[in-house]
Amino acid sequence: MTIRDYGLTPGHLAPGPRNAITDVPGVRVGHCTVRNARHNTGVTVILPREEGRDVYFHRCAAGAFVLNGYGKTAGLVQLEELGELETPIALTNTLNVGLVFDALVSYTADCCAAANRRLRSVNPVVGECNDGTLNFISERAVGENEVRTAIRCAAQDFEQGCVGAGTGMICHELKGGIGSASRIVELDGKRFTVGVLALCNHGQLEELNILGRRPGNAIRQRLNTPPRPADKGSCILVLATDLPLSSRQLNRVARRCGVGLARCGSYWGHGSGDIAIAFSTAHDLDCEEPAAIRTLNVLREDCLDPVFLAAAEASEESVLNALAAAVTTTGWDGTTVHALNEFADLL
Amino acid sequence: MTIRDYGLTPGHLAPGPRNAITDVPGVRVGHCTVRNARHNTGVTVILPREEGRDVYFHRCAAGAFVLNGYGKTAGLVQLEELGELETPIALTNTLNVGLVFDALVSYTADCCAAANRRLRSVNPVVGECNDGTLNFISERAVGENEVRTAIRCAAQDFEQGCVGAGTGMICHELKGGIGSASRIVELDGKRFTVGVLALCNHGQLEELNILGRRPGNAIRQRLNTPPRPADKGSCILVLATDLPLSSRQLNRVARRCGVGLARCGSYWGHGSGDIAIAFSTAHDLDCEEPAAIRTLNVLREDCLDPVFLAAAEASEESVLNALAAAVTTTGWDGTTVHALNEFADLL
Amino acid sequence: MTIRDYGLTPGHLAPGPRNAITDVPGVRVGHCTVRNARHNTGVTVILPREEGRDVYFHRCAAGAFVLNGYGKTAGLVQLEELGELETPIALTNTLNVGLVFDALVSYTADCCAAANRRLRSVNPVVGECNDGTLNFISERAVGENEVRTAIRCAAQDFEQGCVGAGTGMICHELKGGIGSASRIVELDGKRFTVGVLALCNHGQLEELNILGRRPGNAIRQRLNTPPRPADKGSCILVLATDLPLSSRQLNRVARRCGVGLARCGSYWGHGSGDIAIAFSTAHDLDCEEPAAIRTLNVLREDCLDPVFLAAAEASEESVLNALAAAVTTTGWDGTTVHALNEFADLL
Amino acid sequence: MTIRDYGLTPGHLAPGPRNAITDVPGVRVGHCTVRNARHNTGVTVILPREEGRDVYFHRCAAGAFVLNGYGKTAGLVQLEELGELETPIALTNTLNVGLVFDALVSYTADCCAAANRRLRSVNPVVGECNDGTLNFISERAVGENEVRTAIRCAAQDFEQGCVGAGTGMICHELKGGIGSASRIVELDGKRFTVGVLALCNHGQLEELNILGRRPGNAIRQRLNTPPRPADKGSCILVLATDLPLSSRQLNRVARRCGVGLARCGSYWGHGSGDIAIAFSTAHDLDCEEPAAIRTLNVLREDCLDPVFLAAAEASEESVLNALAAAVTTTGWDGTTVHALNEFADLL
Repeated sequence: MTIRDYGLTPGHLAPGPRNAITDVPGVRVGHCTVRNARHNTGVTVILPREEGRDVYFHRCAAGAFVLNGYGKTAGLVQLEELGELETPIALTNTLNVGLVFDALVSYTADCCAAANRRLRSVNPVVGECNDGTLNFISERAVGENEVRTAIRCAAQDFEQGCVGAGTGMICHELKGGIGSASRIVELDGKRFTVGVLALCNHGQLEELNILGRRPGNAIRQRLNTPPRPADKGSCILVLATDLPLSSRQLNRVARRCGVGLARCGSYWGHGSGDIAIAFSTAHDLDCEEPAAIRTLNVLREDCLDPVFLAAAEASEESVLNALAAAVTTTGWDGTTVHALNEFADLL
Repeated sequence: MTIRDYGLTPGHLAPGPRNAITDVPGVRVGHCTVRNARHNTGVTVILPREEGRDVYFHRCAAGAFVLNGYGKTAGLVQLEELGELETPIALTNTLNVGLVFDALVSYTADCCAAANRRLRSVNPVVGECNDGTLNFISERAVGENEVRTAIRCAAQDFEQGCVGAGTGMICHELKGGIGSASRIVELDGKRFTVGVLALCNHGQLEELNILGRRPGNAIRQRLNTPPRPADKGSCILVLATDLPLSSRQLNRVARRCGVGLARCGSYWGHGSGDIAIAFSTAHDLDCEEPAAIRTLNVLREDCLDPVFLAAAEASEESVLNALAAAVTTTGWDGTTVHALNEFADLL
Repeated sequence: MTIRDYGLTPGHLAPGPRNAITDVPGVRVGHCTVRNARHNTGVTVILPREEGRDVYFHRCAAGAFVLNGYGKTAGLVQLEELGELETPIALTNTLNVGLVFDALVSYTADCCAAANRRLRSVNPVVGECNDGTLNFISERAVGENEVRTAIRCAAQDFEQGCVGAGTGMICHELKGGIGSASRIVELDGKRFTVGVLALCNHGQLEELNILGRRPGNAIRQRLNTPPRPADKGSCILVLATDLPLSSRQLNRVARRCGVGLARCGSYWGHGSGDIAIAFSTAHDLDCEEPAAIRTLNVLREDCLDPVFLAAAEASEESVLNALAAAVTTTGWDGTTVHALNEFADLL
Repeated sequence: MTIRDYGLTPGHLAPGPRNAITDVPGVRVGHCTVRNARHNTGVTVILPREEGRDVYFHRCAAGAFVLNGYGKTAGLVQLEELGELETPIALTNTLNVGLVFDALVSYTADCCAAANRRLRSVNPVVGECNDGTLNFISERAVGENEVRTAIRCAAQDFEQGCVGAGTGMICHELKGGIGSASRIVELDGKRFTVGVLALCNHGQLEELNILGRRPGNAIRQRLNTPPRPADKGSCILVLATDLPLSSRQLNRVARRCGVGLARCGSYWGHGSGDIAIAFSTAHDLDCEEPAAIRTLNVLREDCLDPVFLAAAEASEESVLNALAAAVTTTGWDGTTVHALNEFADLL
């Protein structure tokens, strides 16, 4: 299920063929889900490059924007200084960031070994949301095996909803998880893609806004539960594009993911670590070429408006798709979080 | 006219008695409008303190957030370093920032002279939007007299719409200008106010979103004009509160003004200098007390959620009020920009 | 050995009794060193609170400054958003950040369990430098046991030089490691302390500046080795104080650690992740008090100058103490890095 | 007089032929000095392009870094967002920023008129230091005429010391003003230049550090005056280069100007607005080319180390040259500030 299956079409711009981040050529997504009596959690990886071209040797220009920094995302310090991404982006639960960071080190060490190099340094990028309501989070159920599995499974076609890092997430007090969408931008007669994948664990029910519909009060009545005391969640948004953008431009584009969040009713609550990371596959920032000065394609700054709109729309639709694809889930202590699809009549 | 006169109520929280930034005790707003054959422009000042207590001697904690930095706002470097506001905030057109900056220097020099001091340094804060479509902007029609007049006229009751700095502004391709709104937040059994004043000159018609209504296409048809090529505008949002917030907290609150903008359909376009400035009147950061260590009240961090929501709602309603209060205006070269009130039937 | 044992006295201000970060009341430092045929590495922890008062329940105001972000330090996103520190600060080698992060999660979970709480979220702060020349870094020799040991050993008296995280570090092409120093600042007739601990792994030999002495060329001649191709290192500086500083003020103070680095000859090289983290023990930012508004002591902004100077001097002396305390060390592949004490005649 | 005339040579790298910012091809500097019974002030402009190619139509990539934001520099918001410089950089006294901003608007309007365009928007960049000790600053003696004169006089050869914006400045409690220096960097077998111009009005006498010499105490004794209560000054550093650097890289380079300041004894005092602005002349970021995607040369990131060192050395020498070139000056109220050249015997 996607939000379009409800007959709802967010925004004006046309989506790509999959309407997903993997419409950007080369980008792949993989999940490993951990679902058992104590856990509803997992890991989701976004690989920027096609099979056989690891990002560590074919770096991407990258940017980020911290909408609300109540979060533990690793890797932003270097990503922002150098404007580069050199690992897959892994998403997981809050307390698993350390082990997933370590798994990306291990994975990159293997990539280096396969290329007859010794790994000395790498900057793993790991985003997180807190699934502690449905997952016994302090047990840190995601380790190296799960990350390796997610990387191995990465493909252009991938599931959305309660899968991978999204397994235990809650969004606007309904079941959240992974959502994705894409938009096509035409420039110089060529078609480029802006794709977003969102891990959605944010928001309050009463604020939920689905293309102007505000079903929160009606859902609350039917749920017959008190409101959550506060927006304790997080949303991690990963944006990919094949447009030739500089890291500064990617910082600007990442900021517009916040527009998509706001359109759905988030106000980037105090307790919500809302963070956007953007990368471009257009360049291969390999540091080992001999010349000190190299030539890069870069988008003219005043052509960014449609890219910003694409980022906003794809982010909005990613959040809505996370809600649309989710399924009702019960956690380790019996807490049940209901999915939007139970309330389709209220939209 | 306000947006509530259209029967529309943005958000959940209750507004203050004026539903304006001046619901925050002590805050006053003044305009000076310049409207003639060549000009539609002016200046609007926000005075943080009540008459007789100049902000230069009774400084406010302050923060800011640059949503999109394509703008010429002056004073942010020091405001962000020290977390302090020491002049009225003046809003004007883009090319008048220098003269308005100088007028605030002159005004502050007089305040000092009246207190038998010699002015050596001051950090004027001046925000701007570009009214160059309806105003012959390169002539810089706003000078010291206009700023002095606006300060002299400042009061708790003030006009909205096409007045002061808002005279020549354009918002979502309709007539824009000055809008304001407020929200009440209760904490520890006391009532505090969050007020916003927005100078609105941003946005595209097709993106306009009025509480879920999207009248852009219908208005476009009736207007029979082509879309603006790009979002070249700006929006300056000034937020005031009597909550005891630190400068870091005010930075966080200022960021949420961007949520209000996004709710109305802005995506913080490339050419739009969208900037929020927030101050608190709760403290008097006078530097001349003898003790090195002083005592301050500060809000507990986890109580910020309702303040963030108030910032988002008051910002959204400020934009809508700017549109609601505006009147159709014709510029120096005959260009006419129509006001929302001509299209009330399309909402 | 300290730099003062060489007869050299950095700066004007008086040091505290230990001339170390632990002159700040409550602050403790612990090391765990891993030194064997393949490894020269370890972990160093800075505990902000005295025994029995864990920082997770007694949070510190905190700030940070990224002088050069080519580094993998974890925890800065939340620390900068909330202005709070809620774990010990752990320092280790680059590729061990993930496991040390995880160990801090585990440690905090135990603290919570001991207080009959369930840990749901925590923001571990982990700094790193790259010891890959003297340490077989990809094997990640620092794990939970080492972190637990370092925490258990933490005390006011602690070793400097090639110990803990400093075991395998290289500074200005000489043996580096852990250094510390402190300065006394008097305000309102009371004595406050500014203490710094630096993990030093940065700099080029020719640039080394010891209170105006430039022994680099002479040392190079005696070493008879070629210069390192680039400044690939890092320096993490941790500053503690009992002055009542806000998080914004701590950001400002952290920046001045860069002055100390520069005084010793660093120019914050491209490959050097130079990062400063500052915290104040003056407040107990416990989130569980009932009142929404609390009272805090804060230093008057214009009293910061001596604090800045103290930060610069203590940082400078920390770097010099790391060099002075270091001992010549040979790594897994036979590489030997010589200590400054071999060249005392050249100073 | 330059610092080299004292027999002192800062740093290792070779300077350009003029040892000034104007060694960067195309860059010109002009002054207008206002010196009379009440004033010691003026304006200095840095023009990035050669005569006949105005920067408004031939924009430069640019970056900035705020070492300490207690300053009123205008134009940084847009410069940092877009990474572009579109006016000459003007330096003046603190209270004159508004009028100098306005003069740059006026100058740019004329440039547009000469090209048959109407000016609608421009982002003037104006740096400032406070010369209020030697200048009756509240009278704002620098206006449009002075700015026009400085622009008209701009040339590759220009004076240093107490001239233009430097006329009334004080540095380390000695007479300060304008200083400049340059460094040559070789890459890919080509020679590039890094040039700095500094407006020096910062620092305390006891901290002054001239290549390891600390003459402050000796000068203080001879002066027989009490120390200044605090570092209330500012230093604006403008860096130019013909290296093809991106705006992100220029931000990084600008930061290293702070190393040069620190080498001379500044700790970026609380009251000192220390700000660095860097631009590259390598690209012509003209927005009016038809293609959305353009090709740019960019330096490989790991080649930045010599550029950083060049920035540090040129900044250090610029500060020392400002001191070396200054002459003893008496202000409107009889205050005399002595120049370094009176104390040459103490170096």
